[in-house]
Amino acid sequence: MTRWKITIEYDGTDFCGWQRQNAAKPSVQQVIEDAVTSFSAENVTLFAAGRTDRGVHAKGQAAHFDIDKDIDEHTVEEAINFYVRPFRVSILSAEKVTEDFHARFSAVKRCYEYLIINRKAPLTYQKNYALHVPYNLDEKIMQEAADMLLGNHDFSTFRASGCQAKSPVKTLDRLDVTRVDDKIYIYTEARSFLYHQVRNMVGTLCMAGSEKWTLSQFADAFHAADRTKGGATVGAEGLYFIGARY
Amino acid sequence: MTRWKITIEYDGTDFCGWQRQNAAKPSVQQVIEDAVTSFSAENVTLFAAGRTDRGVHAKGQAAHFDIDKDIDEHTVEEAINFYVRPFRVSILSAEKVTEDFHARFSAVKRCYEYLIINRKAPLTYQKNYALHVPYNLDEKIMQEAADMLLGNHDFSTFRASGCQAKSPVKTLDRLDVTRVDDKIYIYTEARSFLYHQVRNMVGTLCMAGSEKWTLSQFADAFHAADRTKGGATVGAEGLYFIGARY
Repeated sequence: MTRWKITIEYDGTDFCGWQRQNAAKPSVQQVIEDAVTSFSAENVTLFAAGRTDRGVHAKGQAAHFDIDKDIDEHTVEEAINFYVRPFRVSILSAEKVTEDFHARFSAVKRCYEYLIINRKAPLTYQKNYALHVPYNLDEKIMQEAADMLLGNHDFSTFRASGCQAKSPVKTLDRLDVTRVDDKIYIYTEARSFLYHQVRNMVGTLCMAGSEKWTLSQFADAFHAADRTKGGATVGAEGLYFIGARY
Repeated sequence: MTRWKITIEYDGTDFCGWQRQNAAKPSVQQVIEDAVTSFSAENVTLFAAGRTDRGVHAKGQAAHFDIDKDIDEHTVEEAINFYVRPFRVSILSAEKVTEDFHARFSAVKRCYEYLIINRKAPLTYQKNYALHVPYNLDEKIMQEAADMLLGNHDFSTFRASGCQAKSPVKTLDRLDVTRVDDKIYIYTEARSFLYHQVRNMVGTLCMAGSEKWTLSQFADAFHAADRTKGGATVGAEGLYFIGARY
């Protein structure tokens, strides 16, 4: 048996999300599992670093699976890419790993990026790939607000119902807000995130960035540790799983 | 009567191109003309700086039209964007211009960018927005080849049949090849281009960049002034009309 780690890029638009489920759209997991079965004739289960929601994209999702078939790295990559062709998913690399590697449990860091296009005019070719915010956002104020969230805190204000984490207390390592022309990139890193935490943090940062809230109101919402005090959950279309570190 | 200049962004994927024609997909021209008619109740004809082909995108297409209705700039922008909502087209700005302005004939410079993703793995979210080149391209060699094309030359090697220009002699002002990670941007400027000139230049630059041709073979193909000696026409999906200067 060989354990394989693969790095995956996908366009979340036409998927129901990472995880297999009964849905009209396929899941990324299912499409790749089926591809592995197609070339190996073995049934596999894929484990991912981050189980992304419907519409969320990935530039570097990490996942692992086990197969008995003896095959080289280049061939695994090519074979999966051949069978997933009808879908917007692509294997960037495949490598053999030891059996103690687990894509989900061995990950010590997860990295996400959220893209906002901050302009009045509606989006065209970026429509499924960024959040459109037509009112003015001040990225410096957003960075000041973001800095309050760094470190070990109760993140309940950003925790969606249905979250399976044991505790709302997490450590946020990075939350960087950068503007390039009309694009605002929000990059974040943590060992793990609560359900919808990134999208809820971004929605709440927008309350500060638009100056609908003062920084002190932002701080109050955060310290309330109450989801009903936070900003809206922003759309999945702006969110990218960038990668995991092991 | 007021003459309006509008700056337009669009996703070319679901359009038959700029120009009105009998096609299954709508044209950008038609969609905007219909929107102007919807708010002004006047029939208009739109003239564009660059009549882009099917699948070609625009970040800053320029066009003009005339209407009698007295209306301010902000309202024109909002009204067109309201009526074009079902389509991936967006008015970035609208301004009143004098009657001697003509979006096509007054343009002294047209700017295009071509995006290549140079990597082995298939594309996902960039599929309709870049050309995928899986073999290695050397952008420095491409720049050396590109430099040969600058200035006043017979560009017949890059001229598609059906080109309506009187002469194949044009002046190319810029042709810059820049790599950022796996992205290769080819930016070009000229007063005007022959039909498919940019896509044919890029296809021929790829022959040099992949070292299928030496620079001297590239030069021979160019100086032959013969379309059959040039490289392939690359896909529309990587081409963006950036803007026109007046």
